[in-house]
Amino acid sequence: MSRKRDSLLTLLERADRVAANGLVDRRVFLRRGMTAAGTAAGVIAASWAVTAGAADSIGDNAMPWQRVPGAPFRPYGQPSPFAGAVQRTVLQPYGELAPGAGNSMTPLHALQGTITPSGLHFERHHNGVPAIDPSKHTLTIHGLVDRPLTFDMNALFRYPMVSRICFIECSGNSFFNTMAEPQQKPCGMIHGMVSCSEWTGVPLAVLLEEAGVRPNAQWMLAEGADSAAMSRSIPLEKARSDVIVALYQNGEPVRPEQGYPMRLVIPGYEGNMNVKWLHRLKLTEGPTQTKDETSKYTDSMPDGKAEQFTFVMGVKSVITHPTVGVSMQGKGFYEISGLAWSGAGKVKRVEVSADGGRSWGDAHLQEPVLDKSLTRFTMAWQWDGGPAQLQSRATDDQGRVQGTRKDWTAKYVPGQRYHYNAIQTWAVGEAGRISNVYL
Amino acid sequence: MSRKRDSLLTLLERADRVAANGLVDRRVFLRRGMTAAGTAAGVIAASWAVTAGAADSIGDNAMPWQRVPGAPFRPYGQPSPFAGAVQRTVLQPYGELAPGAGNSMTPLHALQGTITPSGLHFERHHNGVPAIDPSKHTLTIHGLVDRPLTFDMNALFRYPMVSRICFIECSGNSFFNTMAEPQQKPCGMIHGMVSCSEWTGVPLAVLLEEAGVRPNAQWMLAEGADSAAMSRSIPLEKARSDVIVALYQNGEPVRPEQGYPMRLVIPGYEGNMNVKWLHRLKLTEGPTQTKDETSKYTDSMPDGKAEQFTFVMGVKSVITHPTVGVSMQGKGFYEISGLAWSGAGKVKRVEVSADGGRSWGDAHLQEPVLDKSLTRFTMAWQWDGGPAQLQSRATDDQGRVQGTRKDWTAKYVPGQRYHYNAIQTWAVGEAGRISNVYL
Repeated sequence: MSRKRDSLLTLLERADRVAANGLVDRRVFLRRGMTAAGTAAGVIAASWAVTAGAADSIGDNAMPWQRVPGAPFRPYGQPSPFAGAVQRTVLQPYGELAPGAGNSMTPLHALQGTITPSGLHFERHHNGVPAIDPSKHTLTIHGLVDRPLTFDMNALFRYPMVSRICFIECSGNSFFNTMAEPQQKPCGMIHGMVSCSEWTGVPLAVLLEEAGVRPNAQWMLAEGADSAAMSRSIPLEKARSDVIVALYQNGEPVRPEQGYPMRLVIPGYEGNMNVKWLHRLKLTEGPTQTKDETSKYTDSMPDGKAEQFTFVMGVKSVITHPTVGVSMQGKGFYEISGLAWSGAGKVKRVEVSADGGRSWGDAHLQEPVLDKSLTRFTMAWQWDGGPAQLQSRATDDQGRVQGTRKDWTAKYVPGQRYHYNAIQTWAVGEAGRISNVYL
Repeated sequence: MSRKRDSLLTLLERADRVAANGLVDRRVFLRRGMTAAGTAAGVIAASWAVTAGAADSIGDNAMPWQRVPGAPFRPYGQPSPFAGAVQRTVLQPYGELAPGAGNSMTPLHALQGTITPSGLHFERHHNGVPAIDPSKHTLTIHGLVDRPLTFDMNALFRYPMVSRICFIECSGNSFFNTMAEPQQKPCGMIHGMVSCSEWTGVPLAVLLEEAGVRPNAQWMLAEGADSAAMSRSIPLEKARSDVIVALYQNGEPVRPEQGYPMRLVIPGYEGNMNVKWLHRLKLTEGPTQTKDETSKYTDSMPDGKAEQFTFVMGVKSVITHPTVGVSMQGKGFYEISGLAWSGAGKVKRVEVSADGGRSWGDAHLQEPVLDKSLTRFTMAWQWDGGPAQLQSRATDDQGRVQGTRKDWTAKYVPGQRYHYNAIQTWAVGEAGRISNVYL
């Protein structure tokens, strides 16, 4: 074999640089590959198949699991035991005193694509997950309405339904990065209080119309049926637009940790407002000022005051691969991959830097790019084995651009933990070890 | 309260009819609702909230689960025990003789939206689910290539990845409807061998380029590492286009029943070709004619011959709600809801009939409508309490139109069970009972 064709690796070496430190144009993978013949040395990562000749017969080459019948069918499937490490990270700040207060985080660094499997959706509870019997659960709409109404599950199933894929992000997400020293944790253990599902349910606007909203109503108090009595005030204008009373999550009934048998889904608004175990909606003239919107979920400012009702989540992105906890496997090709989102609309652009923000290249955005949804971005990278500082920066279709950590910390007082959306830096150092650094 | 405003129910009574027997224009829900004041009699389904006055205080009105702390966090979540009936239906035709031969079906009638949760993805195994240790599993590309290559999992993780949402449908799906007498089963127990996921993995084209496909290769044999040694021949042209070596399903590692640690995803092609537990790919001049493409997965024709390699799944739709096993709750508003798909492209149109195909109205298609993906359709229906025959008919963007059962059975011989895609009829009869009928 002596054809003179270029291997992918050779093409990568020659590919157009889109920014410094090895960021290359991914269109190299769209060109007809052209292989260098004869050896396996010219490939990104694989070994010469020494058993290729014998590969025609499974006989003696059969793997152990090919020699025995496999497991039978299951009514409800589970992950492979070998994938057991792909799980949420639980934080219980009060320990056994209040085991149901805290959160668990989606392992973004172990996942791919944009949908979060329901078993790995992040959790944030104030007093645990109630065990609700749906046959006894109801939703009541009352307050400034013509007709206070109570819906049981069977009643709700009679109404028209809509589905939408969107993210929910806790407004406290990424709070580790507000600390003075950068925490050495993988992406999901810092930024994993964001998840993305296909939610299906009844448009809230339809139910509000059934009850008849009175003209003086401008706000709506949403209350959960948990033992923390979580409640938040929501502007009526938003409640009447794209809010869903969600009964299904990724096709099946909403999971207990996400509000079974029903929750509010308020696209783009801070997670806390997407009230779980939804039980009552009260139409009011003004916001109710509950404990969950005064003592918590307000943003402390340098002038001694606090911003309240900062509903819309910021434009944000994080590189999920590579991240802390993995070491590079030697110089050569890597795909940098991550997630971007905005509470105000669609992700329009994600830029990636390998030199700490001195030069930037445009990342590829995976289609479909959906409104208020996680968007996967990728960037081809030829790592030369030297130091690198990986960053991503998102821009949304409202023109909002993700800022630096310096910008973010200048805006608030130390200790303010909500709405952190600054650029994340993963530094690649000695022997390919990766660390979280503040730039 | 005496404002003269129309309730949703009144608007529904007056809404434009889009076809006979109560099919109405769903835009009624987009109009500003206007409520009839004073009573709950004017709503679709709800009751007057008698406790509305007391609803301001949870105190004595608290539900039992509000009086105790909730359950703590879990590293991997599970459905509510109250949703335990939402599971796959298992069919094992050989019983204990071969417990791993058969299939399990997605409960389409209990789900909503378009994504199938991974635990409910349909299964079709020939000898059960192998328990594969990913650290010992490899993918070998051999045959007519310049360089036979073996990839372990770490090698594959170095390559660029793509995600796409698409359906996989067993070519034997809906075989119950090929029987002489209609089976009285709910939608998912007849049509549930179709599921839809977000799949992520390495484009097969990139791996083929690494190995270097020789000019005389026109086909590719894909082999699984199961003990049935499932294998199928795939045309190289398709293998080089949109096929993925999938490592992730709905964000997390592929489930064991769907091929952990990797499977082929061949958008639009019959499920059997999307080889699970993918182990080897052999480039060949022609198809290999394995047992899985000669004794099975061929379509018997009236002339005594059989069609082979009928890869592309047909255009198809089914109404998932209502269906056999549910009874209507009395006359009034219902949303007819279902799924449509095509192996050849996007769903362009779904029509719904309530009078057995004599009149049709255009259903609403839920956005985004994605290529070779499940598409949810809905139709507003004012049921008058009388007999009705509900049908749906899909058209794809290639101009293919779903045909009647009569058309389909005329094409094949009795006993041919593959590629059934005829229009489904659910008949609403006495007291709102629903049955499967052949029209």
